[in-house]
Amino acid sequence: MKVTVSRRAHFNAAHRLFVKDWSDEKNMEVFGVCSNSNYHGHNYELIVDVTGDVDPITGMVIDLKDLKDIIKGEIEDILDHKNLNLDVDYFNKVVPTAENICIFIWEILRPKIEINKDLEITLYETPRNFVKYNGN
Amino acid sequence: MKVTVSRRAHFNAAHRLFVKDWSDEKNMEVFGVCSNSNYHGHNYELIVDVTGDVDPITGMVIDLKDLKDIIKGEIEDILDHKNLNLDVDYFNKVVPTAENICIFIWEILRPKIEINKDLEITLYETPRNFVKYNGN
Amino acid sequence: MKVTVSRRAHFNAAHRLFVKDWSDEKNMEVFGVCSNSNYHGHNYELIVDVTGDVDPITGMVIDLKDLKDIIKGEIEDILDHKNLNLDVDYFNKVVPTAENICIFIWEILRPKIEINKDLEITLYETPRNFVKYNGN
Amino acid sequence: MKVTVSRRAHFNAAHRLFVKDWSDEKNMEVFGVCSNSNYHGHNYELIVDVTGDVDPITGMVIDLKDLKDIIKGEIEDILDHKNLNLDVDYFNKVVPTAENICIFIWEILRPKIEINKDLEITLYETPRNFVKYNGN
Amino acid sequence: MKVTVSRRAHFNAAHRLFVKDWSDEKNMEVFGVCSNSNYHGHNYELIVDVTGDVDPITGMVIDLKDLKDIIKGEIEDILDHKNLNLDVDYFNKVVPTAENICIFIWEILRPKIEINKDLEITLYETPRNFVKYNGN
Amino acid sequence: MKVTVSRRAHFNAAHRLFVKDWSDEKNMEVFGVCSNSNYHGHNYELIVDVTGDVDPITGMVIDLKDLKDIIKGEIEDILDHKNLNLDVDYFNKVVPTAENICIFIWEILRPKIEINKDLEITLYETPRNFVKYNGN
Repeated sequence: MKVTVSRRAHFNAAHRLFVKDWSDEKNMEVFGVCSNSNYHGHNYELIVDVTGDVDPITGMVIDLKDLKDIIKGEIEDILDHKNLNLDVDYFNKVVPTAENICIFIWEILRPKIEINKDLEITLYETPRNFVKYNGN
Repeated sequence: MKVTVSRRAHFNAAHRLFVKDWSDEKNMEVFGVCSNSNYHGHNYELIVDVTGDVDPITGMVIDLKDLKDIIKGEIEDILDHKNLNLDVDYFNKVVPTAENICIFIWEILRPKIEINKDLEITLYETPRNFVKYNGN
Repeated sequence: MKVTVSRRAHFNAAHRLFVKDWSDEKNMEVFGVCSNSNYHGHNYELIVDVTGDVDPITGMVIDLKDLKDIIKGEIEDILDHKNLNLDVDYFNKVVPTAENICIFIWEILRPKIEINKDLEITLYETPRNFVKYNGN
Repeated sequence: MKVTVSRRAHFNAAHRLFVKDWSDEKNMEVFGVCSNSNYHGHNYELIVDVTGDVDPITGMVIDLKDLKDIIKGEIEDILDHKNLNLDVDYFNKVVPTAENICIFIWEILRPKIEINKDLEITLYETPRNFVKYNGN
Repeated sequence: MKVTVSRRAHFNAAHRLFVKDWSDEKNMEVFGVCSNSNYHGHNYELIVDVTGDVDPITGMVIDLKDLKDIIKGEIEDILDHKNLNLDVDYFNKVVPTAENICIFIWEILRPKIEINKDLEITLYETPRNFVKYNGN
Repeated sequence: MKVTVSRRAHFNAAHRLFVKDWSDEKNMEVFGVCSNSNYHGHNYELIVDVTGDVDPITGMVIDLKDLKDIIKGEIEDILDHKNLNLDVDYFNKVVPTAENICIFIWEILRPKIEINKDLEITLYETPRNFVKYNGN
């Protein structure tokens, strides 16, 4: 019996969308105001889904306190109150779109979750724009 | 690496559920108060999911500004502040249930989204009733 | 010790904003798409605030079950799944703006709530537009 | 054309997480404050998803009034304003984690929904912790 | 220039509404299912409003980190994952209605907030029922 | 009959809390991670309340389309996708706390709203932290 367990978290960060090799004009054409050189920011809402068998004794797929601590230590401590472009090495070469931040989070969390459990990440950049990634 | 990108939109419309070939009694029996002859209405909340590969340079599955414009031009301009039964030809022969409105929206948007990307539509008729359709 | 007790309810209705004495052009100019002749609709969210002394024995300002029943019988049964312009006499002469619907609800509920308690009505027409009225 | 229809409901209940065969210390170690012997409680939010073909005449997958009544009679009447450990036999032997409550609800509702329709249950224990089960 | 600063928090608790001097019948008559002898529970959402002058240098009415810590230490640590009737002395003699819990929280927090600042507490028992108290 | 009409809007911005005359240590001590030198950001949610008499003919306190346009032109165009510290002159000398941003918005909008109508601004920095200002 496989159940999906979800935990919600959040972090507030600044970012800017731009490709280093492109001119300011090209960046503005592709990314619009998201490319403004002084950065803007978001309250990112994060949902981490872990799918696996329910332990027949504890009735749990994963201990939610453990999952909360993993998200805190591995994601919030790295991204909260940060400038994604300047403070997070990964986004030196990679544009910090919601898509790429979502993949970044999945790649960090995947080795922290038991291999026989599935992992999916949902990331809200705003209440109106959000993305989902599960490694496929 | 496939990511799902979601965009939320909304429109306010009136509608009435009834089958033209049926008597008022039969319509009231099947659709209840939703069949009231003077119409009632909803704030429909719409979520458009597009799933596809992330562009390795831009970090985007689809440009959210483009997706926003497509939803505005193809859906909101057609359905917002309208009476679905009277103002939208499609619902002349088709009962405007949430299910059918969701299929209608999917059918309009499908040709506007690149064919190698998947499309799923979620439509909230109220915060308590909602439907989902992905073409399968 | 005065406490405010709030109860949330909802109703779905169609309406149209127009002044009968005005031309279609003038109505469209003032009310825009809200004036469309075939109606549109909303999921109205209603919050009823009652402020009064806490009963020293029961710890209640008003019995929430009673308040729920009053809202059901006096408001939801009258407005839910209705066309405000056509099905509610009051809006024959009065434009069913959120402001006027809010006043209408307050006027119905005021005599049903003990006179030494204050009453305030909040009405969400959409999550983005809402109004408040307390009789002053 | 398969559409998923979702209905939201809710119930308020008390519970306590503990394994009868374990010591208080072991229960506290595994379940933390959720194991407190005097119980605590939640506003559980429930979403029932039914997936099936749209009836070509009514435009419905399932009558939402029927689905609402089934949820009321089979789930809310059993779980609302109850102590899950003391008032619900099933949780005499089974720890009432969100995972197990979700499976319990699915098992009750599965025989009430036509066999050719899929059923998925989402259960929010809090806005930050939620689980999903579809029988697989 | 007076600004109101609000901080949201939450706690999960069990409770039961009943007056000790009353019979079970009378309690059931007044409090309904909320009186069930085995308790039920809620996710309480708490909003603490502090109103005062903005410090001309820091631009703050109150340090939100301090306010968060006060709410954690004085309220969440006392009420979260507790049975209000059994674990909180105050509710030995006082019925733990939302009204009384709100007053209880206000009375605890009032001495912790500077006297020249106003304090208002909003407490959601469910998303549909909530109360407000400001000491008047 | 005075009714309050509210309109919700939003903007995404980066900011940093620090007093120029203070050392980095003092800023970090007072503002914590909000003082990080590379900025962070938020999805600010804005609610503009206008209170006034209901026009007896139109049933409106203020035309919501006008209010929406004023908020767009005066606030969103100035603050959305901006760095408050670098792109908005006002915050050169003033720390962009939620309190000060709220006052800034009120001061801009006050002359745009008829003088016999009251104006109150609510600004959510996150869903958990928000502020309110009405000019008093």
